[in-house]
Formats: sequence, C-alpha cells, structure tokens
Amino acid sequence: MRTAIATVCLSGTLEDKLVAAADAGFDGVEIFEPDLVASPTSPGEVRVLCHDLGLSIDLYQPFRDLDSTDPARFAANLRRAERKFDVMAELGVDVVLVCSSVGPDAVADDGLLAAQLTELASRAAARGLRIAYEALAWGSHVNTYERSWDVVARADHPALGVCLDSFHILSRGSDPAPIAAIPGEKIFFLQLADAPHLSMDVLQWSRHHRLFPGQGAFDLPAFLAPVLAAGYAGPLSLEVFNDVFRQADPGPTAVDARRSLLALAEATARTSAVPGAPVAAPGAPVAVTVDRVAITGDPVGAPAPVLGGHAFVELLAEPAEAARLGGVLAALGFARTGRHRTKPVERWEQGRARVLVNAAGTGGAALGALAVESADPPAAALRAQRLLAPLLPRERGPAEADLAAVAAPDGTPLFFARTGDYPGGWSSDFVPADRTAPAGIGVTRIDHVGLSEPFDHFDEAALFYRAVLGLTPVTAGEFAAPFGLIRARALTDDARGVRLALTVARLRRGDWAPAVADPQYVAFATDDVVAAARAARAAGAPLLAIPDNYYDDLAARYELDPHELATYRDLGILYTRDDGTYLQVGTQLLGGRLFLLLVQRVDGYDGYGWPDAPVRMAAHRRNRLARTPT
Amino acid sequence: MRTAIATVCLSGTLEDKLVAAADAGFDGVEIFEPDLVASPTSPGEVRVLCHDLGLSIDLYQPFRDLDSTDPARFAANLRRAERKFDVMAELGVDVVLVCSSVGPDAVADDGLLAAQLTELASRAAARGLRIAYEALAWGSHVNTYERSWDVVARADHPALGVCLDSFHILSRGSDPAPIAAIPGEKIFFLQLADAPHLSMDVLQWSRHHRLFPGQGAFDLPAFLAPVLAAGYAGPLSLEVFNDVFRQADPGPTAVDARRSLLALAEATARTSAVPGAPVAAPGAPVAVTVDRVAITGDPVGAPAPVLGGHAFVELLAEPAEAARLGGVLAALGFARTGRHRTKPVERWEQGRARVLVNAAGTGGAALGALAVESADPPAAALRAQRLLAPLLPRERGPAEADLAAVAAPDGTPLFFARTGDYPGGWSSDFVPADRTAPAGIGVTRIDHVGLSEPFDHFDEAALFYRAVLGLTPVTAGEFAAPFGLIRARALTDDARGVRLALTVARLRRGDWAPAVADPQYVAFATDDVVAAARAARAAGAPLLAIPDNYYDDLAARYELDPHELATYRDLGILYTRDDGTYLQVGTQLLGGRLFLLLVQRVDGYDGYGWPDAPVRMAAHRRNRLARTPT
Repeated sequence: MRTAIATVCLSGTLEDKLVAAADAGFDGVEIFEPDLVASPTSPGEVRVLCHDLGLSIDLYQPFRDLDSTDPARFAANLRRAERKFDVMAELGVDVVLVCSSVGPDAVADDGLLAAQLTELASRAAARGLRIAYEALAWGSHVNTYERSWDVVARADHPALGVCLDSFHILSRGSDPAPIAAIPGEKIFFLQLADAPHLSMDVLQWSRHHRLFPGQGAFDLPAFLAPVLAAGYAGPLSLEVFNDVFRQADPGPTAVDARRSLLALAEATARTSAVPGAPVAAPGAPVAVTVDRVAITGDPVGAPAPVLGGHAFVELLAEPAEAARLGGVLAALGFARTGRHRTKPVERWEQGRARVLVNAAGTGGAALGALAVESADPPAAALRAQRLLAPLLPRERGPAEADLAAVAAPDGTPLFFARTGDYPGGWSSDFVPADRTAPAGIGVTRIDHVGLSEPFDHFDEAALFYRAVLGLTPVTAGEFAAPFGLIRARALTDDARGVRLALTVARLRRGDWAPAVADPQYVAFATDDVVAAARAARAAGAPLLAIPDNYYDDLAARYELDPHELATYRDLGILYTRDDGTYLQVGTQLLGGRLFLLLVQRVDGYDGYGWPDAPVRMAAHRRNRLARTPT
Repeated sequence: MRTAIATVCLSGTLEDKLVAAADAGFDGVEIFEPDLVASPTSPGEVRVLCHDLGLSIDLYQPFRDLDSTDPARFAANLRRAERKFDVMAELGVDVVLVCSSVGPDAVADDGLLAAQLTELASRAAARGLRIAYEALAWGSHVNTYERSWDVVARADHPALGVCLDSFHILSRGSDPAPIAAIPGEKIFFLQLADAPHLSMDVLQWSRHHRLFPGQGAFDLPAFLAPVLAAGYAGPLSLEVFNDVFRQADPGPTAVDARRSLLALAEATARTSAVPGAPVAAPGAPVAVTVDRVAITGDPVGAPAPVLGGHAFVELLAEPAEAARLGGVLAALGFARTGRHRTKPVERWEQGRARVLVNAAGTGGAALGALAVESADPPAAALRAQRLLAPLLPRERGPAEADLAAVAAPDGTPLFFARTGDYPGGWSSDFVPADRTAPAGIGVTRIDHVGLSEPFDHFDEAALFYRAVLGLTPVTAGEFAAPFGLIRARALTDDARGVRLALTVARLRRGDWAPAVADPQYVAFATDDVVAAARAARAAGAPLLAIPDNYYDDLAARYELDPHELATYRDLGILYTRDDGTYLQVGTQLLGGRLFLLLVQRVDGYDGYGWPDAPVRMAAHRRNRLARTPT
C-alpha cells in the first residue's frame, strides 16, 4: 500500500510541506499548483528535492475549466495546458488532475465534452502524460462520478481516466458501491478525505471543513473497498482542505494524516466489497478474501488491544501541591496504598479506581499520564508505534515490568498496563504505605477522563485514541461556555470500560479573563453520588458550590421531589436528564487546571453531562482553590 | 433613543457582562437565561446590581416551546412559565421573550396556538407581565413575522405582542416594509442583528455568525425604518450570537456593539419609511419627515467627515531602524522635507504622499499612526468621540494646530488633519530639512494602507472605520496563504481618496513557523510602476524577489507580451487581472512587520491584489531584511 498526500493539506511553504510529508513516512505527494507558484524552487529542483526526500510526485493538481463552449477559450485553455505539461515534464510527474468545469461556458453536451477531453488527452499522450478527470460536487454539468466515468468511457482514450475523490462523492450522498464496476486501470487516481456532516454550501464545506479519514462522519471503508475491488492499484492519497491544518505545524499534521491512512486501510481490510462476505470483528485477525484488493494483510500488523478499563491516572504536581492532592483524595475516600520504590510517587486506591500522585512536577496540578489495562501491553505498544505514536523511554527499575508507554498528540504519556493487579506487575513497583485503608465513600472505578486538547490537535487526538486504542467515537457536541464556544467529543470501548471525553476551545477560551484555563479532570464512578458527596464533604473535600439559580431552573424544568432537589442544592450536585440521568459533583480547581468529579449514571445514561458544563465552568472561575504556598 | 444589549452578545459571567454593558453606555439589557442560571447572584441581587449600574432590564429571554399539541405537556409548560414569572418578578422585568416552537409537538393550528398564547398571556397579565412572541426562522410552523403577527392579532390579548428580530426576518429574505402596518404598541420588543451572507443551515448561521449592525450584509436601516414607522418606541436592542464575541474581552465588544447602534440610527434617520420621501445624502444634515419615527434628530450629532485623502502615515521605530526606513524612503524617491520642531520625527514627501518617520519607537518598524484629510478636523474628532472612540491627548507645541486624534480599536492613533498643506497647519510643526529634494520616481500619493487587525477586533475595526470616517465597505475576500487562511475587507470613500485594506488571520497565522508575522503596509500610487520600480532598484531599494514559477504561471494564464513579462519578472512586479489590472511591487519586510508597496491601477482596477497576496507572503518569509544592530 502506497500512501500520498496533497501539499494543500499542510501548512507552510512547499519546502516545509515536502519535508513534513517525508518525515511522516509518506511515499508520495500531490503537488498543489499554488504551492509551486509561490515557491522559489524550480520544478526541476523540486523533482530533485522530492527524490532526495524519498518522495514520488504522484499528481500535479489541479487543472480547472478546460472544456468550453467558446472555441477561442477552449483553444486558450489548451495552450495553458501545454504550459502546465512543460512544468510536469520538469517535475517528472505524469498524471494531472483535471476538474470538471464550473463556469457558465462549461460544456453540457457529453459528446463535445468527450471530444475536448480527447483532444487534451492526445496532447498529453504525445508527451507521455495522462489526464485524471474528476467530477467536482459543484461542477456545472459533471458533478457525479458516474457522469465523469460516462464521459471518460465515451472518450475512450488510453491517456484519459477518472480521479475519484471521496469528498465529492460522499458529500452528495452518492452510493460508492458501483465504483467496483469501473475498470481499475481507468481509475487514474484516488483522493481521500473525510468530513463532518454539515448543512452548508458544498463548496465552502469542501474548502474549509474536510478532515482526514476517521475524523469525520463519512464511511470511508465503504468507499475505499469498491475502489480497491475495481482493481485500483495507485496510492491512497489525501486531499484535505482544512482551516486548522492550514496553519498548524505541518510535522504533526503529516503524522496525523498518515496515521489516518493506516487506520483506514486496516478498517477497509476488515470489510469486504463483496456482499455477503464475512466481516472480521475489530481486533480479530484480518482475512481479506476480495479479489484484486490491494490491501491483503493487516496494514497495521497488530490488532486493536482488548482493554480492561482504566488502569490508573497519574496526577503530576510540585511537592506541596502533590501533598494537597493527596489530602483531597483522602477526603474523597481514597486510601494511600503504596509509595514508589524509587520515585516521589504515591499510589491511592478506592474500589478499582487507582490514582498515582507524582510530586516530581514543577507547577500546579495536571494530568501526568493515562493508563489503560490491556491483555498484552507490549503488543498494544507495538500497535501504537506502527500507528506512528512515539514510544516513550522508560526509566526502569528492576521491578518495573509490564508497563509500556507512548506519547499522545499533546505529549501526555499513555501507558499500557497488564489487566489485573498481579504479583510482578506494575503495582509491585510500590511498597505498601503506612496508613490504614479508610472505608471509602463508594467510588468503584474511574468512569472517564476529561482531556482539554490544544486547539490545533483536537481532531488529531480523537483519531489517535480511536486508532491506537480501538475506541469508537460515541458522541460529539458543542456548547456555549461563559468564556467561549467549546467542542467536545467522547470515545469509548464497547464495554464502556475506557471512556475519554475530549474538549477544545475552538477559537480561544476567553484570553481576556483572569484565571481562565482549560481544565482537565478525572471522573470517578459511584452508585450513590449523594452518599459519596456527603461523605466527601464531611471529610473536608473542597466541593464546588453551584448557584441557587441553577436549582431554581431545575425546579422549573423537572418536577423533582422537593427533598431530592434540596439534597442536590445542598451538595452542589449537577443533574442532567437525557436518555437516563447523570449526577455529578465536582471539586474546586486543584492547583490551577485540574479537578475531580464524582459521577453516577442512572438508567443507562451514556453521556458526559455537557449541558451542565457551562454552569460548572462559571463556578470554577469563582471557586478557585487558594494555592498553598510551596 | 434607548439602547440595549442581550447578555448573550458578550463573553464572561453575568456580572462581567452587566459591567461591560454599563461601561459602554447602554441603557438596558436583555437577560439571557443561561447567564442567570450559571450565576451566584440571585435575581433580586441582579435587579439591584443593574439599578446601581444604571441599567434597566428590558427583557428576560428566552422561553422556548410553550405551545404543544399534547395537553399534558402544555400544562407542564405553563407550570414552567409560572416559575419563570417568579424569576421575572424578582428581577423586576416585565417582558419575556417566547420563541415559536420547534418541536414535533408544536401547534400548527392558528386557533389553538392563539388560545395557548392567550392562556399564557392571561397568566402573565395577572402578574403584571407581558409576552413578546417571536417567530424563529426555523420554527416548526411559525417561522415568519407575518405568521407570528397573525397569531398575536388573532389572540388579541393586551399582554401579548410580537418581538421582531432582524436576523429571523432578513435571513429568510422577507420584506420588512409591511412591518410598518403593525400597530406600534403591539411590537413589544425589537432585536437587531446583522450577518454575512452565508449559504448554510439557518440555525447554525444564527447561532455562530451573527454580527452587530453594519458589520454584515443585511440592510438594517431598511429593516429599522418600518419598525419605527409602525410606532415602536422601545429600545433598540442587540441580540448577536457570535463565536468570536463569545470569547473576546466584553469591554471593547460592548463599545463596538453600542457604536453599531449609533451608526445604525444615523443611517436609518437618513432613510425614510415613506416611499418617495427625500433621502439625505451621507454627511448632509438629517431631515427626517416620517411620522412617529423615534429617531428625530441626528443620533451622532456630527456628520461624517468629507475626506480629502490620506494626509500622512507615521512609521514608528527605534532610532537605527528609523534611519534605515529613511534610507528606503529615499531610495523610493521620497524627499526628506522637514524635521519636527520638538520630536525625533522626520517628514518625507513625494507628490502628495507624505510619510512621517518617528524614531521614538522601541522596537522594529510598525505603522505608528494614520492621518486623513478633513475639511473640519475638530468636527471629525467630535464625531469619532460620539461614536465612542477615545480622544487621544496631544502633547501640543505652540504650532501644532489643527490635528486631532482618536484611537482606533487596535490602539493605533487616527489623526484628522485639515485638507491641504497650509501655513499654520500641521506641516508647520516641521522645520525645513537640510536636503535638496530629489526628482522622485513617480509616486503621486498614498493609494491605501494595509492593516492587519488582531483576531478579536476585525469586525470591530471595519465598523469603526466605516462609522467614524463614513467609509463604505467595497470588497471582502478570503484567501489561503502559506501559513493559514486570511480574511480581508476593504473600505473606501466615494472619491477613492482614502482606502483601507484590513486583513486578519481567522484562526492563528502559522504560530509554528519561525518569523511569521501579520505585516502592515503602505501602498503608494504611481502611474508607471515599471519606471518607478526600476528607479527604486537603481537607488538601492530592497525590492522583494518574486519566484520565476510565478511568472511561468502568469505566462500560462495570460498571453502577455514577452517583453512585458520579462520586465515584470526582472522587477518582481505582481500582476492581478480582474476588472482592470493591478501591478504591485513590494519591498522586503522592514524591521519585522512592515513593508511598502508601489502600485499602479490600470483600466479602473478597484481591488487590492489579494489573489497575489499568498505569493507575496511566501516571498516575505524568505526575503526578510536583515535587521541592523542598534
């Protein structure tokens, strides 16, 4: 499987983009013309540069508005094409993308259109070049792949084929299955892009909101399978116009991009283009039986891990803040069950919830690391590495076994720990602590972890966790918080043992406001949040005060039992009712940008309480926990 | 004229918003329910706070989905309404906004709907409250103001009226003129919002992209005039959902908001709701003849200035950089014609183009100030002040007459200078310089100034210049630059004597890239850019090199005379053809974030060469002028 990327996907100058694509391991690139036009590097020099970087140039793009009902204009367009053929010859690329025309002079008659494309293809063939003709979703007359293929078939010229672009096809709701009937050798190129479902002008949707496969709402495996079944053997190439990627560091974006192709290939290999053929389960060995499919093995080479739940979270802070965190955990019913043999790390436990408090930090409290339970940590780490996650070096003491860690896109370590707490495992790095375990307040396990992602890395983070951990995106939302709009997305495994809630401030989050941050949190599950909150408060936990106005509104919205309402009001419990009910009570901010939640899911509630997040955010601005001097 | 603003327009907590609204001079507010629900301030305390701030509470909003085909649900909705009436009583507000229903149980039958609204209005009336019923553009059945008025008229209850919202009406393309026939006393409330034309789902358009009047594409004066003609006498109130405003400092946003209402009132007072009535010209005394119009005088009280062109621009830099700037100006044919009597400022002139170089800066070169010629500078400054621009204190020497300055939104001083260079005017602050004037290279005047606005202030800046200088927005665009998407908007006076081109990086502009900034520039007009560029280069001006690839592409796109093309290639002249042709040649970046342009407009070209801006931006990244050590 060869992977390629259009330079328009990445930020920077042409040279920046080529280096980033090569560093991420792409095999080839599509050269987007404006990138070349703005570059001081001549086409011949670009050819050499790509060769030196190990990149092939797979496509020159795009050539627009070739056909015309005006003969003089068509002649001028052919003249323009010849100049571009000159450039292609210097670049050493033999395929050019020709988009269906969008102007008022676009040719509607298939016969004339085929004739004009044949004329272009003949000129291209004379120079050893080929034409990949693509239907833009907003083309004047040719705006479906079926129509573009009809015209190409009618022209029947060896140097003329189609270019298929998943965005143009799926954005119109076209069925990609019939693509399998197109002769593979006539599919000259394949461009892949995902996108969220947006109800807007398709051109604006295409130019600003495309995403890498797996980040949006399109079913890319169902698109790719028939293309491969048709016999397409060229590169899987990305063409993604996205306002965020356009200005983000092209290095990480290129890695994100290539990861998306690896994950897409894996997902596609598990599906089948032949109706009725068996579909392998996620994580199962891949068995592709479709004739002529280019993806014949497992492109990642290591199945998605079977997760056993959150193994632990690590909280990182400077020593005084770490001590304070320990106090809060104690008030929340956690027992200090161990101290690391060689590091300033304490282990706290309650039920199956485990928290490590690491005092080696240098600032306020933050999430230091995530850990999930996996049946085979080395295999899980290998998969992560194959999906381009950097493996983190471990400073290993003799007993620190069975822990492997990779870096998430924001740099947070993600650990894989062997399922269960067994002799010789990671827990044995800890010596038993000197305190008697308290009774606890009813926390059973870690329900989920809330991660606030950096602006540029939101879609990347979601894809990372989806691909590396085999999680499924289950819900996405957007809410107006006091200091700006927040986007949120949650991912989980099928067993709901591992849940991650990602949020991002889409623009900036109230830079003007003092002490506004994007806090992270850990949510602990309990079966009785009222009892837990009462016990925590009695033990001195710094619970977050929620305004009376909130409860007055709750009384207007729902006919709650007055005693129940009074209890929630008293304890600061937030109440979200949807499919089921969600009860949550939070702590104040601990050391700047971290808080802890106690949550109870009732009647199968499967969300994350986002409707109440703005109220919590406003409360956090008020009720900041005073920092203890170091 | 009373002005009000919905708290949802502003960022922050309820308390932040109320303070910002009061500081900007608003008379009242609409309290947006989620702001109150998240606040620890009780409704009674909010009432006191608003009173202390000098704000009335004009509307409580919104109440949604009142009517229902399900009797039990309607009963529950009435119960919910009673609880909200409790809140209103505590707040001391007597009007509540009720939006048309959007649910599947919304009532389609006008008779039943009128009956349900009458039931609500009766309950409201019993408590001294009133219901303002508004048609949402996406309401299930009631989605036009005509329909909402039909239902209200049918109900015929004294406590039931309509709320008119310009967004819901204009986004659907409805004609607002018939509003004049609604009895004014039945228009209980008026909400104003502008918006850009966007081809997208109207709910998303409404929730994210509303703007203050004058910032978008709607004809708000044509909307407001019939509302006033109907006899509406309540406040002009803003309800603007905007992702940028949601997270921007609410202080400046509130000022921006109130300025928009002042400018809208002025523009409306110049129009007429009576067909055939005379319309006053911009800047002329206002003569409103419409019966019952609430705006009877000039709301701003000082007409838009008649501009004579750019008076000068001031470039500000530390001394060594200022000396370097002087050298570049000399190479561009400028003569150093004066030195300020008391400040380290030199005056440079060529044709009617004047540049002041101020060596009192502390960093690299930047635009220090803009100045426009006005027939009456004190009147122009008074107008700016009435439009909420802060007047800047002037350190006046005895001869520094006839200059008044206000601060633009980004803090840049905007000077008003008397038209013409006359004895006793601002130029007499300068003593003649010691150099003989060179012949010049053909610069005739300042063509325009390019301002890169801070992210949060783009729409605010456009409205500021539009309102304060009486400019017209002439063009808006968006282009993909090497380091991210750029939005641009140009404003000019009718005579094209003053032109401003504003740009903004809508997200961030390539924070990852070294040495990427958002440069400002000054464009000087010439009638022969080739001769000017040749002379400038011969004199050692640091012209910007443009890649050969650009000219090869130009040759493909246009059949230019080979000699002409070679000349452009040789001199680095960028060539934009549209309605007319635009030729521009730039300098390298001078001191970090400033450059100078020589431009020639051919055949009536009226744009700003934006299609070539990405090429220039890529060139600027490469060809940064080495900084001279101080």
